[in-house]
Amino acid sequence: MEAEKKGKSSAAYPMNSGEGPYSYAKTSSSQRVVIDFIKELMNKEIEGKLDMGIISTSPSKPFCIADLGCSVGPNTFSAVKNIIEAVELKCQNSQGITASSKSLPEFQVFFNDHTSNDFNMLFKSLPVNRRYYALGVPGSFYGRIFPEASLHFVHSSFALHWLSQVPKEVRDKSSPAWNKGRVHYANSGDEVVRAYKAQYEKDMEQFLQARAQELVCGGLIVLIILGIANGIHHSEAGGNRGFDLVGSCLMDLVKKGIVSEEKVDSFNIPTYLMTTQEFEAAVKQNGSFGIERMEVLPHVKVNGISLNAQQVTFCVRSTLGELIKQEFGEDIVDQLFDLYLEKLEEIHPSSVAETEKTLSFLVVLKRKPISH
Amino acid sequence: MEAEKKGKSSAAYPMNSGEGPYSYAKTSSSQRVVIDFIKELMNKEIEGKLDMGIISTSPSKPFCIADLGCSVGPNTFSAVKNIIEAVELKCQNSQGITASSKSLPEFQVFFNDHTSNDFNMLFKSLPVNRRYYALGVPGSFYGRIFPEASLHFVHSSFALHWLSQVPKEVRDKSSPAWNKGRVHYANSGDEVVRAYKAQYEKDMEQFLQARAQELVCGGLIVLIILGIANGIHHSEAGGNRGFDLVGSCLMDLVKKGIVSEEKVDSFNIPTYLMTTQEFEAAVKQNGSFGIERMEVLPHVKVNGISLNAQQVTFCVRSTLGELIKQEFGEDIVDQLFDLYLEKLEEIHPSSVAETEKTLSFLVVLKRKPISH
Repeated sequence: MEAEKKGKSSAAYPMNSGEGPYSYAKTSSSQRVVIDFIKELMNKEIEGKLDMGIISTSPSKPFCIADLGCSVGPNTFSAVKNIIEAVELKCQNSQGITASSKSLPEFQVFFNDHTSNDFNMLFKSLPVNRRYYALGVPGSFYGRIFPEASLHFVHSSFALHWLSQVPKEVRDKSSPAWNKGRVHYANSGDEVVRAYKAQYEKDMEQFLQARAQELVCGGLIVLIILGIANGIHHSEAGGNRGFDLVGSCLMDLVKKGIVSEEKVDSFNIPTYLMTTQEFEAAVKQNGSFGIERMEVLPHVKVNGISLNAQQVTFCVRSTLGELIKQEFGEDIVDQLFDLYLEKLEEIHPSSVAETEKTLSFLVVLKRKPISH
Repeated sequence: MEAEKKGKSSAAYPMNSGEGPYSYAKTSSSQRVVIDFIKELMNKEIEGKLDMGIISTSPSKPFCIADLGCSVGPNTFSAVKNIIEAVELKCQNSQGITASSKSLPEFQVFFNDHTSNDFNMLFKSLPVNRRYYALGVPGSFYGRIFPEASLHFVHSSFALHWLSQVPKEVRDKSSPAWNKGRVHYANSGDEVVRAYKAQYEKDMEQFLQARAQELVCGGLIVLIILGIANGIHHSEAGGNRGFDLVGSCLMDLVKKGIVSEEKVDSFNIPTYLMTTQEFEAAVKQNGSFGIERMEVLPHVKVNGISLNAQQVTFCVRSTLGELIKQEFGEDIVDQLFDLYLEKLEEIHPSSVAETEKTLSFLVVLKRKPISH
């Protein structure tokens, strides 16, 4: 089964699990602000773009929603709540104001993430008063994880910048794309950038192909994607700079004799920040979806305040801590991020956290009818 | 939603998780032997009793199987494999020998257990070459956990002797059913036995009612149930004796001043071994299912050898260790089971492990058509 092959071939990059101070659950509040902001936008899209024809009020046909790359919450739960409320509102509006709850469909929600995700914590955090049947689906969303035409709505937020794997060439000493002394592509030579971009293109095609099979015709996909502005160099994006700084800190630990240079040479962070143009090209190339909306989201500061160096370091650690632990062992993690904080304070955190050139964009895709 | 209420109201009694020496995964080999034994029996039932009408070969209608009380594997995986192979065989036979794999349905398998189950371990243990889409479903099977008419086949093995909760009366000092100085009903007065039986009856009705809603008409339920022979006293069943011995050990720790008497008085093990007659009565009372088969399984010894005291202690510890840890703290667990082993060696392990009066039985239920 294709699902298995993909599931196995793509590596897993778990967010920090559990409930500790560096956990993803504790540090994802800036993402939360964006999610709240787009709530209204998504409501409008569901109201305007979701075909009533795919919603069955027959109790034996639940409305099926998947959140891909859900992590451990709580953002996934508020996103799902929004979607369900919007679909219910749409049902009520289309049936007239006298519609009773009996004419609303049942909802089944599939929470997906890598097998290494902390599903135990996710399940324990499920909202008590939820109005849906909750399920966990382990596996990479770059392969098939659901039966054919079994989903009505797919949501994925801040997950698609993770590649299925580090491009092989950048770890290959004999390749011109070997990424010696760096852990990311942003400040590397063109060959490295090309290898990352090729991996992104392959992954995105597999993502769209799998979803095209899993979604019913007329079904919607809402994606919130961390990307970069069109036409700029990758090194200008704050998010990429933040990762590049990790590489620089690791090289400092090499100089101190704490980490082996070979290990840093072979370690690379499997993320790629795409542009809206690149994403659009992938959707056209795939052919199964129409783009209903694509919109760059405004920059949002948490409580209107800029993040300080400590907060930025927390965010980067919650994103990469687990990956670094897997690669270099637990012992170096504290030391690495102490150094990171130090360096960040020198160069000013805003260079990593707040450049306008890193951006988030929202896309609404609709599954086209299958042509015969 | 009913699912939520039930999910919250019933307590969770997890098997020992993880991969340690006392883990459920390591000590469930005797259950495995029984599962292998019944493989052939289940094949015959699927061949003979499963209506081809409920199997759609349309790729958009997967065949949905739920394993209720799945724990962390590996038994759940082999049971699921057997079911799928039997359904595929049935499809091939009914379509003639030239049937290609294209005419087989896709399979979706829902692994269910309490929210406190170690789903992380379950997901990591999923067979690599599985031919199905795997999902985890957290929640008590004594309530609704699936949408209406969404399942074709339900399987549950050695899970239904767990009650949804300890009957309230047995923890109530003012009740005639107060179970002072004991942790189980087998050797207690009639009031305690009645309270346990009443809880069992309520739970079983809720189990059948939820499944009647979740299963398509014609869908099958295969249950493997740990019970006792008709017409004997509960104290004669080896399984119950094994639990009673835990109570006796706890009272010894009370005498030694290690455990408080009040805690033992309020602690009770929430299991009930039913007879085939009791089960039959519950199914008739519910009315939604026909009993297609009910068969007491032969006693099976692992490799033909009787379990020794050490092995029996391991089994009891893997079943109750987590529960006792939750109630009395981790510190007493080793001490308690050292004492258990000692006592068991005195009275001979066979009195707990091998009485003919504890038995397993297999039941096949079929969802009747809904009458209007």
